[in-house]
Amino acid sequence: MKKFAVILSGSGVYDGAELHEAVITLLTLDRAGVEYQCMAPDMPQMHVVNHLTGEVAEDENRNVLVEAARIARGNILDLAKANADDYDAVILPGGFGAAKNLSDFAVNGAGCEVQPDLVRFCKAMAVQNKPLGFVCIAPAMIPKIFGPGISLTIGDEDEGAAAAITEMGGVHMSCPVREFVVDEQHRIVSTPAYMSAQRISEAADGIEKLVHKVIELAA
Amino acid sequence: MKKFAVILSGSGVYDGAELHEAVITLLTLDRAGVEYQCMAPDMPQMHVVNHLTGEVAEDENRNVLVEAARIARGNILDLAKANADDYDAVILPGGFGAAKNLSDFAVNGAGCEVQPDLVRFCKAMAVQNKPLGFVCIAPAMIPKIFGPGISLTIGDEDEGAAAAITEMGGVHMSCPVREFVVDEQHRIVSTPAYMSAQRISEAADGIEKLVHKVIELAA
Repeated sequence: MKKFAVILSGSGVYDGAELHEAVITLLTLDRAGVEYQCMAPDMPQMHVVNHLTGEVAEDENRNVLVEAARIARGNILDLAKANADDYDAVILPGGFGAAKNLSDFAVNGAGCEVQPDLVRFCKAMAVQNKPLGFVCIAPAMIPKIFGPGISLTIGDEDEGAAAAITEMGGVHMSCPVREFVVDEQHRIVSTPAYMSAQRISEAADGIEKLVHKVIELAA
Repeated sequence: MKKFAVILSGSGVYDGAELHEAVITLLTLDRAGVEYQCMAPDMPQMHVVNHLTGEVAEDENRNVLVEAARIARGNILDLAKANADDYDAVILPGGFGAAKNLSDFAVNGAGCEVQPDLVRFCKAMAVQNKPLGFVCIAPAMIPKIFGPGISLTIGDEDEGAAAAITEMGGVHMSCPVREFVVDEQHRIVSTPAYMSAQRISEAADGIEKLVHKVIELAA
């Protein structure tokens, strides 16, 4: 039985992992007979956003690992303790947490840095020729983790994020919301999900295809 | 196009709405071409549980509506403002939030009370002969909302919750995790989901069947 790592960035679209994207990823893996282990960095969130008003809750502090545990129903691993030897592939759902906690792309754009444990784990997976899937805004981290020349998508070429990705050396490909982009050489798959989706079924179609492609590459 | 109300109780299995159950409900509705409106009561959570440790975070306070907005990506209605005339059916995902916030069943068992706006809305739906779906532990509220004599399930008859439901006048039926129970006379459907599920795909199978049955009843 294959075992995948699913890396989460909190719990909620505006300050953590996008919940629909994360749950659809887990369901698709389970239905395909793939075991999964959720993981997240043990660190403070960049901030907490009140998802009703959209405003930053200035007096609140939350931890990425503790909040991500809500998606994992408590079964979650500190990303710092994850060993690439134990997994056949990795998938990163999106949400602003990918750009605020796993990296600072939301603040620094092309000048962003990526969380060190995430860089270490993803590079270790790539060295072992294991495939990786990035959803929504998470692909913006690909050039910073792996270097230039990798094909990826965050959806529409006109998104400001696409220009920043190109500036970092990424090869951005426009992609319909229900589809995915694969860089066969680097074994990296990406899909726009809620970068483009207007409804949950649009995001789900693309994520399901991405998950099945990553499973195929891990076979 | 049909429009369903989905009533949430926070965001996270141990103190709010179970995330997998909630997201699978929304996805199933959207794929069936049914519009949905998420709603939740604007009230403090009973408590906040650290989902990594399982312990109560004594110094934290969160609001049910604000946290449920994470599942709804901000598009959520205060349950107090919901009008049954606007909806064709209602579905309540589970999670401890149903037994801690929407009711106090987790504390008071058969002596529980149900949140007044939820009682008002559900009764108004039933008066209009509109179907209702209850997932996981949420069916425990059925006898308190509608009175005795309604067939329902929370999964296994041996669960302590089943005895409390019987004490309240509910007619508890054992049900496999991937199936559902329907009370045709009262147009109320229930499924065990994570009361019994050992994995997300088990919960998903039952929830998808429940949602399709409620859609059929609403036709």
